[in-house]
Amino acid sequence: MTTDLTTQLLGEFLGTMILVLLGNGVVAGVSLRKSKAEGAGWIAITLGWGIAVTLGVYATAFMGPGHLNPAVTLAMAMVGKIAWASVLPYMVAQVAGGIVGAFLVWVQYMPHWKETQDSAAILGSFSTGPAIRSYFNNFISELIGTFVLVYSLLAFTKGNFTDGLTPVVVGILIVGIGLSLGGSTGYAINPARDLGPRIAHAILPIANKGGSDWAYSWVPIFGPFAGAMVAAWLFMAVA
Amino acid sequence: MTTDLTTQLLGEFLGTMILVLLGNGVVAGVSLRKSKAEGAGWIAITLGWGIAVTLGVYATAFMGPGHLNPAVTLAMAMVGKIAWASVLPYMVAQVAGGIVGAFLVWVQYMPHWKETQDSAAILGSFSTGPAIRSYFNNFISELIGTFVLVYSLLAFTKGNFTDGLTPVVVGILIVGIGLSLGGSTGYAINPARDLGPRIAHAILPIANKGGSDWAYSWVPIFGPFAGAMVAAWLFMAVA
Amino acid sequence: MTTDLTTQLLGEFLGTMILVLLGNGVVAGVSLRKSKAEGAGWIAITLGWGIAVTLGVYATAFMGPGHLNPAVTLAMAMVGKIAWASVLPYMVAQVAGGIVGAFLVWVQYMPHWKETQDSAAILGSFSTGPAIRSYFNNFISELIGTFVLVYSLLAFTKGNFTDGLTPVVVGILIVGIGLSLGGSTGYAINPARDLGPRIAHAILPIANKGGSDWAYSWVPIFGPFAGAMVAAWLFMAVA
Amino acid sequence: MTTDLTTQLLGEFLGTMILVLLGNGVVAGVSLRKSKAEGAGWIAITLGWGIAVTLGVYATAFMGPGHLNPAVTLAMAMVGKIAWASVLPYMVAQVAGGIVGAFLVWVQYMPHWKETQDSAAILGSFSTGPAIRSYFNNFISELIGTFVLVYSLLAFTKGNFTDGLTPVVVGILIVGIGLSLGGSTGYAINPARDLGPRIAHAILPIANKGGSDWAYSWVPIFGPFAGAMVAAWLFMAVA
Repeated sequence: MTTDLTTQLLGEFLGTMILVLLGNGVVAGVSLRKSKAEGAGWIAITLGWGIAVTLGVYATAFMGPGHLNPAVTLAMAMVGKIAWASVLPYMVAQVAGGIVGAFLVWVQYMPHWKETQDSAAILGSFSTGPAIRSYFNNFISELIGTFVLVYSLLAFTKGNFTDGLTPVVVGILIVGIGLSLGGSTGYAINPARDLGPRIAHAILPIANKGGSDWAYSWVPIFGPFAGAMVAAWLFMAVA
Repeated sequence: MTTDLTTQLLGEFLGTMILVLLGNGVVAGVSLRKSKAEGAGWIAITLGWGIAVTLGVYATAFMGPGHLNPAVTLAMAMVGKIAWASVLPYMVAQVAGGIVGAFLVWVQYMPHWKETQDSAAILGSFSTGPAIRSYFNNFISELIGTFVLVYSLLAFTKGNFTDGLTPVVVGILIVGIGLSLGGSTGYAINPARDLGPRIAHAILPIANKGGSDWAYSWVPIFGPFAGAMVAAWLFMAVA
Repeated sequence: MTTDLTTQLLGEFLGTMILVLLGNGVVAGVSLRKSKAEGAGWIAITLGWGIAVTLGVYATAFMGPGHLNPAVTLAMAMVGKIAWASVLPYMVAQVAGGIVGAFLVWVQYMPHWKETQDSAAILGSFSTGPAIRSYFNNFISELIGTFVLVYSLLAFTKGNFTDGLTPVVVGILIVGIGLSLGGSTGYAINPARDLGPRIAHAILPIANKGGSDWAYSWVPIFGPFAGAMVAAWLFMAVA
Repeated sequence: MTTDLTTQLLGEFLGTMILVLLGNGVVAGVSLRKSKAEGAGWIAITLGWGIAVTLGVYATAFMGPGHLNPAVTLAMAMVGKIAWASVLPYMVAQVAGGIVGAFLVWVQYMPHWKETQDSAAILGSFSTGPAIRSYFNNFISELIGTFVLVYSLLAFTKGNFTDGLTPVVVGILIVGIGLSLGGSTGYAINPARDLGPRIAHAILPIANKGGSDWAYSWVPIFGPFAGAMVAAWLFMAVA
C-alpha cells in the first residue's frame, strides 16, 4: 500500500463501519420481531457475516490494506507487513468504525427494537455472547477461531487481502469459521467487531435493551489477540 | 462502452427485464400456493435476487454498462461515468424492462395466482412493502441499503460492472444487502425494480390481486435516489 | 474445440451422466425416506442442481464443448458454433448419459427406495412434473426457463462454456433459474435430463415405483427446444 | 511442487488438521445441544464441509500439493503426479492430521459434550455412519462418491489443486457431492477424514460417548480407495 496513514485510517474506519453495519445487520434482521428476515436462521447469519467482511474489504480496497480487525493488524505487524507504529491508530479507527456501524444498524431497524421484548436478542444484534458461559472454554474457542482466520489469511494472501477476488475468498473463510466454529461463542474473532458495537449498545437509547454484559467483554478481545499471535508464530515457523 | 445509445437502451431494457423476471420470480415462487418453492424462505429470496442481478448484468454486458437501476444511473452520472443527457432515457428503459419482466413472472406462474388467496403475497411478488409502516424510517432504510450498494459498486468496480467475474461479485453484494438490510423494507434499492412491477400489478388482470399500495410507492423511488447521492458524494470525497 | 467427434460424443455422454447423477441425486437425497438429506428442501435441490451442471461441464471440458443439453446443442447449431451434422449424435449421447446417470442414482440410494412409499417422490427423483398440471402453461414455463438459460449462456460465454471459472458461472445461472422459475414445473430446461431418467424409471425394477407419466413427457422436451430457439433468434438479432 | 518431502508431509498434516477441524466442527456445531448452530441442517453441514476442504487446501498451498486425502494420493500416484514412495508417508501424515483436527473439535465445543445425551450424534461429530446399514450398498455409495470426487479433480485440475481459485472450485465440488450423494452414508470419501477422527473418538475421554463402531470402519476406508482407482483408470483411458 502506498496510501498515506490518514487515508489508511479512514479506510479502516469506513471498512469496519460497513463490516459491522452488514454483519450486525444480519443478526438484527434474523433476530428482531416483524423483520422480513425473522427466523432465517444460522445459515443466513453466517452467510451474511461472510459477505459483510467481503464488502468491508472491497469498500476500503483503494484506501489501505483492509484489515478491519485489531487481531489481524497485530498479526500483520508480527509478520512485518505493517509498521508497529501504525498498530494502535489502526485499532482505534477499527473500533470507531464498529461503533458507527452499530449505530447505523440501530437506525436501519429503528421501528423493530420496540417490538422486540427479548433483551438478549437485542444485545446479540450488537455483541457476541457464549452459548454456554465458561470463560476459559469461551476464550479457547475464540482463540481457535481466530487462529484459523489469521493462519488462513497469511497462507493464501500473504497479507494482501484486497486484490481481485481475494475479498470473496476472505468472505468464504468467514462463512466457514462461522458454520464450523461459531456455535460455541458466536465467533467474534475480531475485537473491534465486538467492542465497538458493545460501546454503541451501552450508550444508545435502544428500546427494550438490557445490560451490555461487560463481564464477558474481555473474552472476544483477548481470545482473538491470542489466536492471532499463535497463527503468526506458526506461519513464521513453517513458511 | 463504445456501443451507441440505442444499443445501450436496449441493453438496459433487456437486462432489467431479466433482473425483474428472476428477482420477482423468486418471490413469486416462494410465496405462491402450490409452487414447488413454496416456503423456501428468506435465504432463497435473497440468493435468488442476487443471482437475478448477476444474470441481468451478464445479459446486457455486450450492449452497455449494465446499470439496470435508476439510482445507479444517477450516481454514475454524478461521478462522470455517463453523460447526463443519457440519464432520463436510461431510466425510462429500465422501468419499461421492469414492467415487461413483471409481466413474464405473471405468465411463468399463471396457474398459481388463482390458488393464492393472500393479496399481500401477490403484491409482494411485484413490489416491495415495509415490515412496519413508518414512512420516514422506511425511507431511511432504503437510503442506507442503496448507499451500501452504490458505494460498494463505486469502490470495487469504479463503474465498470460487466467484465469477467464482476457481475458475480455484484450479485454477492446484492445477497449481502438483502440478508443484512432487507428485513425492514424488503430492499427495493432500485426504483425501476419497484415502480415497473407496481405498474404491471396495477394494469394486469391478476387473479386475487388487491390494491397496488401507491401510497408507499414514493419510498422505494426517492429513498434509493437519496442513498445513491450520498454514496456518490462520499466516494468523490475519499477517492 | 479441436477434439474429434467421437471424443466429443464421449464427453457429452460422460458429462451428462455426471450431471444427472448429481442433479437427480440431490432430489433423491432430499426426497427419499431415511436419507441424511431428507427434508433439506428447495434450496438444497437448486444448489445441488447448479453444482451438478458445473461439475458435468468440468468433467467433459477437455473432451468437447460441454453442452450436456439437447436444447443448448440446438441453439449452438443455430448460431453457428457447431455443425448441424453433429446435432443428432450429440443429442443421442446426451440422452444415453442421462439414462446411465439415473441408473447410478438408483444404485447410490439402493436401500432407500423400498423405504419410500411415495411413488410421486420416486418419479420426482428421475423426471420432472408440474406443480399444477396445465400442459399449455407448463410448456410456456419450460420455454421461459430455457430462454433465460440459453440467452444467458450466449450472452456471457458466446458458446464457450468450459474455460476457467465459466462452469461455475453456468452453475450459478442454473441455481438462479431453479430458485426463480423452477416452482411451476421443476425446471427440466433440458430434454436429456428429463427423457433419459424417465426411460431409466420405466425400465429399472425400482421398489415402490408407479407409472412414468409419459403423458407429460413431451412438455420438458419441446418446451426447452422452443425456448432455446427464441433465445438464439433474439441473440442473433441483438448481438 | 518443489518443496521437499518433509515440508510436504507437514503440509498434509496441517491441511488435514484444518480440514477436519472445520469439517467435523460443522457437524458438531449442528448436532450438539445448546450450540448456536444447533439444528442448522444438511445445507449447513454440506456447505461447511466444502469450505473446510477449500481452507484445508489453501492452508497447505505453499507447502505441497494439498491432497489431504489418502484416496486422492493413491489416484495421483496412479496417474504419475506423485512418486509411489511418497504415498505411505502422505497417508500417515493425513491420518495424523485427522486425529489432531478431531481433538481440536473436542476442545472447541468442550462444554457441549456433556449437554448432549445422544451418543450417535457425538460419534457423528467424529466419523461417518450409514443412513441404512448395508455394508455392500454402503461400500458402493462411498465408491461412487469418491469416483466423482477424484474424476472431477483430475478432469479440471490435472492434479494441481492449489493455484488461484482452484481450492474454491474444489470446495464447490465437495458441496455438490455432499448434497447429491451424501444422503446414504454421510460421504466420508476420504479415509483419513474418517479413520483419524474415529481413533480420536476411541481414545479421548469424551462425555456421553458410546462405541466407535469399528465394525463399519472399513467401509469409509476401502470404498474411497476403490472409487479413486476406478476414477484414475477411467481418466487415463479417456484423457
